[in-house]
Amino acid sequence: MPSASQIQINASRLQQRIQELAQIGKIGETGVCRLALSKEDREGVELVKSWMQEAGMEASIDPFANLIGVLKGSNPDAPILMLGSHVDSQPYGGRFDGAIGVLGAIEVVQTLVEEGITPECNIEVVAFCDEEGCRFNKGLFGVRGMTGKLEANELERTDKNGITRREALVQFGCDPADFESYVYQEGRIGAFLELHIEQGPVLESLDAPIGIVSGISGPLWLTVEMIGFAGHAGSVPMSMRQDALLGCAKIIVALNELVRQEPGAPTVGTVGSLSVFPDSRNIIPEKVSFTIDLRDIDLRRRNAVEAELLSVIENVSREHGLTYTIREDTNSEPRYCANWIKQSLHQEAALMGLTPPELMSGPFHDSLTMSYVCDYGMIFVRCLEGISHNPKEYASPEDITLGTELLYRTARRVATEKGGFQP
Amino acid sequence: MPSASQIQINASRLQQRIQELAQIGKIGETGVCRLALSKEDREGVELVKSWMQEAGMEASIDPFANLIGVLKGSNPDAPILMLGSHVDSQPYGGRFDGAIGVLGAIEVVQTLVEEGITPECNIEVVAFCDEEGCRFNKGLFGVRGMTGKLEANELERTDKNGITRREALVQFGCDPADFESYVYQEGRIGAFLELHIEQGPVLESLDAPIGIVSGISGPLWLTVEMIGFAGHAGSVPMSMRQDALLGCAKIIVALNELVRQEPGAPTVGTVGSLSVFPDSRNIIPEKVSFTIDLRDIDLRRRNAVEAELLSVIENVSREHGLTYTIREDTNSEPRYCANWIKQSLHQEAALMGLTPPELMSGPFHDSLTMSYVCDYGMIFVRCLEGISHNPKEYASPEDITLGTELLYRTARRVATEKGGFQP
Repeated sequence: MPSASQIQINASRLQQRIQELAQIGKIGETGVCRLALSKEDREGVELVKSWMQEAGMEASIDPFANLIGVLKGSNPDAPILMLGSHVDSQPYGGRFDGAIGVLGAIEVVQTLVEEGITPECNIEVVAFCDEEGCRFNKGLFGVRGMTGKLEANELERTDKNGITRREALVQFGCDPADFESYVYQEGRIGAFLELHIEQGPVLESLDAPIGIVSGISGPLWLTVEMIGFAGHAGSVPMSMRQDALLGCAKIIVALNELVRQEPGAPTVGTVGSLSVFPDSRNIIPEKVSFTIDLRDIDLRRRNAVEAELLSVIENVSREHGLTYTIREDTNSEPRYCANWIKQSLHQEAALMGLTPPELMSGPFHDSLTMSYVCDYGMIFVRCLEGISHNPKEYASPEDITLGTELLYRTARRVATEKGGFQP
Repeated sequence: MPSASQIQINASRLQQRIQELAQIGKIGETGVCRLALSKEDREGVELVKSWMQEAGMEASIDPFANLIGVLKGSNPDAPILMLGSHVDSQPYGGRFDGAIGVLGAIEVVQTLVEEGITPECNIEVVAFCDEEGCRFNKGLFGVRGMTGKLEANELERTDKNGITRREALVQFGCDPADFESYVYQEGRIGAFLELHIEQGPVLESLDAPIGIVSGISGPLWLTVEMIGFAGHAGSVPMSMRQDALLGCAKIIVALNELVRQEPGAPTVGTVGSLSVFPDSRNIIPEKVSFTIDLRDIDLRRRNAVEAELLSVIENVSREHGLTYTIREDTNSEPRYCANWIKQSLHQEAALMGLTPPELMSGPFHDSLTMSYVCDYGMIFVRCLEGISHNPKEYASPEDITLGTELLYRTARRVATEKGGFQP
């Protein structure tokens, strides 16, 4: 472990800012609710903007509501080194998800400035708008905006109060008419580094304060609807039933077996949402709708599990007289971190006396979208019991310091060495 | 099958009344919504009252909102033969559930009167108030009232608009202060006969127009809550999960196997209602609450299945790191129809050229409560595809005629023969 004297960032300033940002939209003792483009989000963005300026950056909000701080390099035309994450939160969220990536990046820049280091390239720190996606049911908005990846009609999506994203953006002070001129040109971003809490229990189980991400697995998201036939729970003999929930239960059990087939593989499969119709205790379920979330860093293996699962659904449906539909909501391929960035991270960590494990990221992050326009790397910080998207979310100051220090050292290396952006 | 000349009831008058009653609270082409103590219920009760009077009965509404028609016998002090069912409906109900039992009973009395037959004992036809229980979430109100089986605070139960049952009763014209004096004295009711649609597919599968009920199985109702630990669907390895929905799915699958263990047994088990928390596609379910409905005409066998199920719940919970609670909401014992009534029904059916099968009733009926104060018998009428509690509910005029004719013949026998009420 590095000694205190090896830590070059200002850990207490960083902690101070994490605590201060957590006051905005605070719920309970440790929770946060800063929904994208809300009043609280705006307040958070303004506070973060002031810290960017304090760190020596020029800061502004683009039409996608991304907050961008720029530290000019000696060669401003060189591809940018971008750092960042998001400060919007889940409705019942924690203090660390996203926030440490933005505040850690500001700390990196402020430390560079205080050390009198001028980078070759510009360094940009971004607090991306609406990574979470809970308000308009579609996330990664800001990062998709600035990389030219918005889909048709996204601005017409509404929140539960009927407010469109367009209205929310305008209220935030953004003008969608300006979108086009704020999309980054191809090749303009050289690399992207993101610091984030793990949101899982792997680092904790390995007793490791930080980890280096191998890639974002990217989920396959399916919604399955199975339809049987309702009937009185007391009067339809078992042999005559078409019970949609029984069919669904068999699929949940089978999914669990399928993803555990290969010992040691990181494959995960989850049924997280389920609804029953008519949902009455004495009526045989006629219709069940449920989601499937399937992830693997190895796409070939994930596809094999998917194929087996589809055949289970077919067989169970036939056995129980059910019809079904399967909707594919998302099908993301795994996106691997750049080898050269992982190498830099490992080397810098070694200089700090650390040997962080590599691990896959199940959750997506702003990095997922960035991976399509530049090389990227991610640092994970251990979080207590893997809890995230919950007020109980916790990462210790010590672990956040180590993650930020590694981000600092790696960013410094990339931005100051000639040829920092290696192929 | 009996020839048309063997049918003594007035089948077309009965059909006419079924159709006419179905106009009140009509939804769509074939649906009915007559919630207990509603305006529509009142309108239905008034119409049925007029038919009772037309049939030669004195009719009145008691303080429990039961509509009671009385045909005086030659020995009015003899135990009453009671016939009936209910005319309230589910919110999205059909035309036959309950209604044929009341209108069939009126037809029985009117036929007796037209045939110039005076019964020994009084015959009372009752349209019981609120059998369904959907409005105040507790059914069999009227029949429990008149048999002295109401529970404390029942009048304070509220419907979804905050109206208490007391208020609804008063609005209906009933005075709860009079309850006590309207409870039937022990021994006053000699026997109860109820005609009802099967609400299940057994008669249809046996190609039988009518059936004789062996008993009402009575459900065991449990609510199980299982608690695991939420986590991100992408970041928690399978081996570290405490997935409450996976545990629940295993129990649903096991319940299905347990109730099918004994070939030919009428045991049925159903999970009809289920809710997941937080019910998000990318979060491992932390909490699942679900209902279990278990029925059997053989209580010993039902208890054995229950015991096995509890041990499955314990084992699954241990395997998946879940905690659980089980709440017993209802535990009804099977209530058997009187052998002497079943015999009379079989004999009268044989005289009609029919051999109706015996079958258990999974659903409860007003008969369930009556079984605690007198002998009872039930006739089931085949219904299309077993559909009930649904506008699609259908029983053919021919089948209803046969059921009502058997009710007529059996009631005539019981009410006119000396010693009709056999032990």
